[in-house]
Amino acid sequence: MKIVPVVNINGLLVDIEDAKISVFDRGFLYGDSIYEVTRTYNRIPVLLDEHLDRLWYSAERLSIPMIHSRELIKNEINKTLVKLNQDDAYIRVIITRGEGEIGLDPNLSTNNNLIIITKHLKGYPSWWYEDGVTLITAQIMRNPKNATDPSIKSGNYLNNVMAMTEASKQKAFDAIMLNQQGFVTEGTCSNIWIIKDGVINTPPLHAGILDGITKQQLLKLIKERGLKASELNFTPDDIKNSDECFMSSSTREIVPVKSLDGVTIGTGKPGIITKQLMSLYKNSTRAMTVPK
Amino acid sequence: MKIVPVVNINGLLVDIEDAKISVFDRGFLYGDSIYEVTRTYNRIPVLLDEHLDRLWYSAERLSIPMIHSRELIKNEINKTLVKLNQDDAYIRVIITRGEGEIGLDPNLSTNNNLIIITKHLKGYPSWWYEDGVTLITAQIMRNPKNATDPSIKSGNYLNNVMAMTEASKQKAFDAIMLNQQGFVTEGTCSNIWIIKDGVINTPPLHAGILDGITKQQLLKLIKERGLKASELNFTPDDIKNSDECFMSSSTREIVPVKSLDGVTIGTGKPGIITKQLMSLYKNSTRAMTVPK
Repeated sequence: MKIVPVVNINGLLVDIEDAKISVFDRGFLYGDSIYEVTRTYNRIPVLLDEHLDRLWYSAERLSIPMIHSRELIKNEINKTLVKLNQDDAYIRVIITRGEGEIGLDPNLSTNNNLIIITKHLKGYPSWWYEDGVTLITAQIMRNPKNATDPSIKSGNYLNNVMAMTEASKQKAFDAIMLNQQGFVTEGTCSNIWIIKDGVINTPPLHAGILDGITKQQLLKLIKERGLKASELNFTPDDIKNSDECFMSSSTREIVPVKSLDGVTIGTGKPGIITKQLMSLYKNSTRAMTVPK
Repeated sequence: MKIVPVVNINGLLVDIEDAKISVFDRGFLYGDSIYEVTRTYNRIPVLLDEHLDRLWYSAERLSIPMIHSRELIKNEINKTLVKLNQDDAYIRVIITRGEGEIGLDPNLSTNNNLIIITKHLKGYPSWWYEDGVTLITAQIMRNPKNATDPSIKSGNYLNNVMAMTEASKQKAFDAIMLNQQGFVTEGTCSNIWIIKDGVINTPPLHAGILDGITKQQLLKLIKERGLKASELNFTPDDIKNSDECFMSSSTREIVPVKSLDGVTIGTGKPGIITKQLMSLYKNSTRAMTVPK
């Protein structure tokens, strides 16, 4: 039996065919919305507070007044998860600036819409984790920090969709995007990491990236373990010359990368440190989600 | 009596409260959509073919396969306008990449949604045209051409919303946005023009702008009249030092600009050439929309 997603629109749990939003909603018209995605284990959302902190950061950056309290959003997430009734779930929380007269001025709408999408998370193909995935360098550049800042998790994801389209056309798993200076920023929906001579490195915030929750958690775990981590700019060539490479995201967690633009990275298999981090991160999320 | 908008969703004319789209639509999730806006006089859309040409251009740039024919879209626009039953109407045509499994890969959905929003166009405040409007220079930069190219008219309008937010906070009418080289690109929803020593100038396409239909039509009219036009880069200082300044858009047409960042432009009143162009453009749209 197919497990259908459960959607919550402004507090109402609705069937899939009723999970609709007005065409006058600014999220639909302009991508004038913010969102967060996380997952559950044992029905408990992973690092939810950190995700909600970032939701508030995105709102502030876009001058979206948050009319829903943190407590209300948490309660609505729980209500939606109870209805979904699955141990492993995907959770997407979307806040739009709401509906009003058509026009760019944000003052035309002040009544945010809150949408929560939950669905059963079946798990991802095991080959991603066992063999590693292939990347390409996208021709399209990442939006710069001084324009549509990638640190804001918003409904404007065309930049990433266009990079993913390039990857898809080249039968690659994903694409990395460069900034105007030619430095690596991130994948289309995950942060990127390289390991060289035992040092674990990921691009700095000022490269123009999303400040990944999984990335932050990994940096913490790496430091706790006494491993060496840095946040320094690097180029696609640095990826090709690295010993190991992987991507991190809240739903996919750590995915090893075996090649970039057809060039094999390291041994072309998930590296030793990458595997250590995969198990370290897995243990940490499981520890966070032990049922009470 | 308030005239309510008429919305057409995939060929169905719906009431406002039923004008809804799935929250799984990629237009809502990612701004993965394209659109065009024009207006009617005498129930006839202005420069509709030019707008549809640009819709197809945007689709091609985003690798969105157009499953609706040009003829079908025109028929649906007409059907919607007949129901609206107004001489002066606003028309917004939106194509989204449709619905599917959540994920950036465009192959997850291949069934576009077609949404047409029409509403009565009451006309804009007369002071815009008689007194001119005030602009500011936005702190936020325009997305560059090699990232989310502004020549693609898509559902990703946060860059513009953020600039408009700055204008709104400073009680200005609109904001102009600069590119990474510091040159003027455009307003948040219109092209910008300056006139100096009789030469009418607007930024070139390579500055990173939308190739405005009204802008193209104006350039044509200017050349036909034997006036001097150019498309050359300029800076905010060039605007402040110009004799006249105005903005152009399909719905607002020509709006004179009286100041930038508090600095008066020319006499601070709509200029002579600006007024000539206003009447030239007005006559041309009226000539296009004479009822048969």
